[in-house]
Amino acid sequence: MPQVISDPAELRSVLAGRGRVGFVPTMGYLHEGHATLIAQARAECDLLVVSIFVNPLQFGAGEDLNKYPRDLPRDLGVAGGAGADLLFTPSVDLMYPDGFATRVTVSGVSEGLDGASRPGHFTGVATVVLKLLNLVRPDRVYLGEKDWQQLAVLRRMVRDLNVNVDVIGVPTVRATSGLALSSRNAYLTAPQQARAAVLHRALRAVQERYAAGETQVQALQQAGLDVVASDDAVELDYLSIVGAGMQPLDSVEPLGVQAAERDRNDRTEADNRNMTRVLLAARMFGVRLIDNLPLVTAPQVEQGQA
Amino acid sequence: MPQVISDPAELRSVLAGRGRVGFVPTMGYLHEGHATLIAQARAECDLLVVSIFVNPLQFGAGEDLNKYPRDLPRDLGVAGGAGADLLFTPSVDLMYPDGFATRVTVSGVSEGLDGASRPGHFTGVATVVLKLLNLVRPDRVYLGEKDWQQLAVLRRMVRDLNVNVDVIGVPTVRATSGLALSSRNAYLTAPQQARAAVLHRALRAVQERYAAGETQVQALQQAGLDVVASDDAVELDYLSIVGAGMQPLDSVEPLGVQAAERDRNDRTEADNRNMTRVLLAARMFGVRLIDNLPLVTAPQVEQGQA
Repeated sequence: MPQVISDPAELRSVLAGRGRVGFVPTMGYLHEGHATLIAQARAECDLLVVSIFVNPLQFGAGEDLNKYPRDLPRDLGVAGGAGADLLFTPSVDLMYPDGFATRVTVSGVSEGLDGASRPGHFTGVATVVLKLLNLVRPDRVYLGEKDWQQLAVLRRMVRDLNVNVDVIGVPTVRATSGLALSSRNAYLTAPQQARAAVLHRALRAVQERYAAGETQVQALQQAGLDVVASDDAVELDYLSIVGAGMQPLDSVEPLGVQAAERDRNDRTEADNRNMTRVLLAARMFGVRLIDNLPLVTAPQVEQGQA
Repeated sequence: MPQVISDPAELRSVLAGRGRVGFVPTMGYLHEGHATLIAQARAECDLLVVSIFVNPLQFGAGEDLNKYPRDLPRDLGVAGGAGADLLFTPSVDLMYPDGFATRVTVSGVSEGLDGASRPGHFTGVATVVLKLLNLVRPDRVYLGEKDWQQLAVLRRMVRDLNVNVDVIGVPTVRATSGLALSSRNAYLTAPQQARAAVLHRALRAVQERYAAGETQVQALQQAGLDVVASDDAVELDYLSIVGAGMQPLDSVEPLGVQAAERDRNDRTEADNRNMTRVLLAARMFGVRLIDNLPLVTAPQVEQGQA
């Protein structure tokens, strides 16, 4: 008679037995944000893999696939300096051979915000990240919080498909000006990058209005929109306040209630702080930029689960 | 400096190091066909997992989800007798918790035949099998050739998503009458099962016409349709001759040319024999039955790749 198991964790423990493998998937042109991801993974894992793959499937028609910045020698230096053991650099032909026909779609969390502005984008992201997870088989995957909706989509995918990996979100690294680090910042001159910090100031304005007691989303968003309107280089796509499922909110809980919620639901404080978030996307000087912040300023520490 | 790897096989060899795990996913109510799968897996693997999960996601509205036959004690006996080490029996709530939002779709190969008759069916199959593969993480997964299109869809998915598993197709086991074994045969009385063998005779008639030199698909199909028409209990859904990608064919290569193709393309004889296949689906006595055969009668041996 075989042993009957209905609990996946038990199943895994029967089948498991390796050291901890960490994984940082990237599209290359690594910056300090990536280095932070890599360094955190280095500290927590036995073997650390960084991938560089500019994924055609997540770029729409007219987007910047062909001009996306690439510099492998530089990336080797950044990844190695931050502690990567392996750099995985698959070719497009290898990732998408003739006859490739499979897609991973995540409904709900992928549908608004960037999902609305970039049709098919998150399907491309989910599909390639699942492929990479299957190739690398890491115990932990590290993803930047700058791409907050992407992080939510991938958490959902990992949970839904029982991918045996912990998803670790790592806080956004910023320039002194507040501008979120991004490979796409390379498209901007230094003065343009300084101007682009207006996006971070807009998010901060929302935080400040919330800290002052405002709970109506429309008023909170207006605080951000006022800052955005101060610079006519900003072509705003969206500035939205959303919950953990990326759903639009009408109002948010005041700080005191959030604390009560935390106690009632046994959430960690960090979970709680990150639940409600302000996200924006805008085009400046021809470059699409995204950023986001939690409604309260605090050290953000969080940890996913498979 | 990290080591740079662009070849997934190399990546895997760096990360690997376990015994061979075999996996047989089923919906339970195990019969001799399953026992054959399990016995083959037993002979080839160190640890053998059989799952039983009646997957709601692959049943359409009005299909037989609720009445699908279930008998866990009996299944334990069959699986254990055939050599299974573990029986994995996840609950529906565990497989599809609240908020479940992810689907795996495979275009092309999943679109005709059963894919046309059962919308969403293969998305449900691909999604649950990927989940099970992620939970079990086998080295080899064994699937019956009775569900030929399903096998093709899952081969495509495994290849496209870089799932690290070998897909092994195992030939259909038949009753003495020729009827393909299936859990759904339990819906039929013994006399009805005897009548249902007409479906196998129809497939055999196509084989025989091909062996006699016919290469036009319409004429080959007619040979099968003539047999089907001999029993008015058959409500035929389709009888189709398709290639490896499940694409409909107008004509097929004669036997001699198939041999030449084999030499030219370095295929194995078994690959070649299995490339062109006649598939049918029909309802008899209220039960939907499917079956298929290669165009030539021969021992069928094949092996997939991840």
